[in-house]
Amino acid sequence: MRKLENLQALIATSVEKLAYPVYPAELYEPIKYILAIGGKRMRPALLLMACDLFGGDVEAALPPALAIEVFHNFTLMHDDIMDNAPKRRGRATVHEKWNNNVAILSGDVMLIEGYKLMMQVRNDLLHQVLDIFNDTAVGVCEGQQLDMTFETSNNITIAEYINMIRLKTAVVLGGALKIGALIGNADQTDADLLSDFGVNLGIAFQLQDDILDVYGDPEKFGKQVGGDIISNKKTYLLLKAQELSGSDELNTWLATAQFDAAEKVAAVTAIYNKVDVRRHAEAEMQAYAEKAFTALEKINLPEDSKQYLRDFADGLLVREY
Amino acid sequence: MRKLENLQALIATSVEKLAYPVYPAELYEPIKYILAIGGKRMRPALLLMACDLFGGDVEAALPPALAIEVFHNFTLMHDDIMDNAPKRRGRATVHEKWNNNVAILSGDVMLIEGYKLMMQVRNDLLHQVLDIFNDTAVGVCEGQQLDMTFETSNNITIAEYINMIRLKTAVVLGGALKIGALIGNADQTDADLLSDFGVNLGIAFQLQDDILDVYGDPEKFGKQVGGDIISNKKTYLLLKAQELSGSDELNTWLATAQFDAAEKVAAVTAIYNKVDVRRHAEAEMQAYAEKAFTALEKINLPEDSKQYLRDFADGLLVREY
Repeated sequence: MRKLENLQALIATSVEKLAYPVYPAELYEPIKYILAIGGKRMRPALLLMACDLFGGDVEAALPPALAIEVFHNFTLMHDDIMDNAPKRRGRATVHEKWNNNVAILSGDVMLIEGYKLMMQVRNDLLHQVLDIFNDTAVGVCEGQQLDMTFETSNNITIAEYINMIRLKTAVVLGGALKIGALIGNADQTDADLLSDFGVNLGIAFQLQDDILDVYGDPEKFGKQVGGDIISNKKTYLLLKAQELSGSDELNTWLATAQFDAAEKVAAVTAIYNKVDVRRHAEAEMQAYAEKAFTALEKINLPEDSKQYLRDFADGLLVREY
Repeated sequence: MRKLENLQALIATSVEKLAYPVYPAELYEPIKYILAIGGKRMRPALLLMACDLFGGDVEAALPPALAIEVFHNFTLMHDDIMDNAPKRRGRATVHEKWNNNVAILSGDVMLIEGYKLMMQVRNDLLHQVLDIFNDTAVGVCEGQQLDMTFETSNNITIAEYINMIRLKTAVVLGGALKIGALIGNADQTDADLLSDFGVNLGIAFQLQDDILDVYGDPEKFGKQVGGDIISNKKTYLLLKAQELSGSDELNTWLATAQFDAAEKVAAVTAIYNKVDVRRHAEAEMQAYAEKAFTALEKINLPEDSKQYLRDFADGLLVREY
């Protein structure tokens, strides 16, 4: 079995080789630019990993893996407009460097280029792989819409929140794994189980991200600790604390427009601690991790391949606090 | 052969039956809204017409035809953001009625929904039909980008302009006709010829639109006569007049920010008349129409089918001045 970091490196060098026309420059330069910003290339690497685990030809899985990466970067380009984000990984976002219109239209072309790459799959898999890609793509858009809707909505249930993170971040992991498995000649049942593994792992990972935002080690988290609290982001922790907390103190903080950031983070964290929200969040995360492992155990793969997947999941979920 | 207006009516009723989820409402309501605004449904009707001319099953061509219509409306939704257009056919545009983010994301989903519909083609045609759809979609995006770039560019050649209108408006006509022909079991050569017919007819049609903007009958044109002159749009007429006109009067009008609209239209039209730009534009339009008819003659179809296509082209091109 190939190491995940080797697959990520293979994706990185293959992304560099993707060729786009030079004309019209405003359409294709932003595509090269955002793809060069980089990232962990985790989604496409998972596709290759799934193919490899089932003994498939990783080279044959490369164009669909690149499709997943191009698609992912299309969503980033459009999300950055919608979120009004000036920076991505320290570089100016496309709409900042060029303008909104360029980012809209380049993103549109990236989605089409994603389809072109995804179509470079064996013909007997074409229809099924594109069905999975379509469902994944629609899911990501639905998740992004729900994420935006929730920003200005005040009675989000935890079930709605879990559904949102499932759509926005988890289905693409499941989709990538399923496509990779099918290219590796996995049977339908195993491909579906690997997809379940990916979706539930993705939800667990996102819940962990919510926990780390509050309880993470600032040195290791890589983002501003308390960022979700400062921006009133409706994470699992906030929704659960609202459910558990009898007092109005939490809602008062949410409604206060002028505040000292450190003071708000400390006060809201204290409320979280009082109702023990971290324990609830960890239990929820664990529940999704267990769903992932349950699906994994059912897959018809040799023990060493399953151990590879378990190690991968553990590495993803046990991050430093 | 079915009448074109009957095919347009079939599309109109089929568009009404397209079903989308109700949740998230902000994602799917705009899709229903823009599709209900209507239009001539010419592009999808051409796809059905091509299928019918080759003796194919029009019902089987319906989902791909709807794909073309959904795709076309995706481009309208995004173009309206980029063009800052408040109205479309007298109704508020999606970004006006909701907001830019909703229009970006709903448009993205429409593009995916277009692929889902296009995939409802017989399996032996799937790859080829999607290749055509991809090329068409990329072409439309390239054309839109060039159209925007040309707005702020000062040395556009006529060849660049023709290439822009080919991409922005003509390739989709060629693509729709070609897909319809293939579904109707046309051979490759005939499908390509019908595509050539469509592309060249599309260019001729757009050139006619440029002419009508200046010389059209205000009662019959449906748009504001002189609109292109008022907005300094770089049409064939403007580019040709710049090429032919020795005087700086035209450029002075282009550079004047404050003006009386009727006075500018009259003055620029007078310059156009002086260099006889209408005659040049009509000759160029005629040249593309002839290319269309030359391709048409080579298609292996019975004479009555060719006459149907000739009548269609004549109806499109001979509009009242």
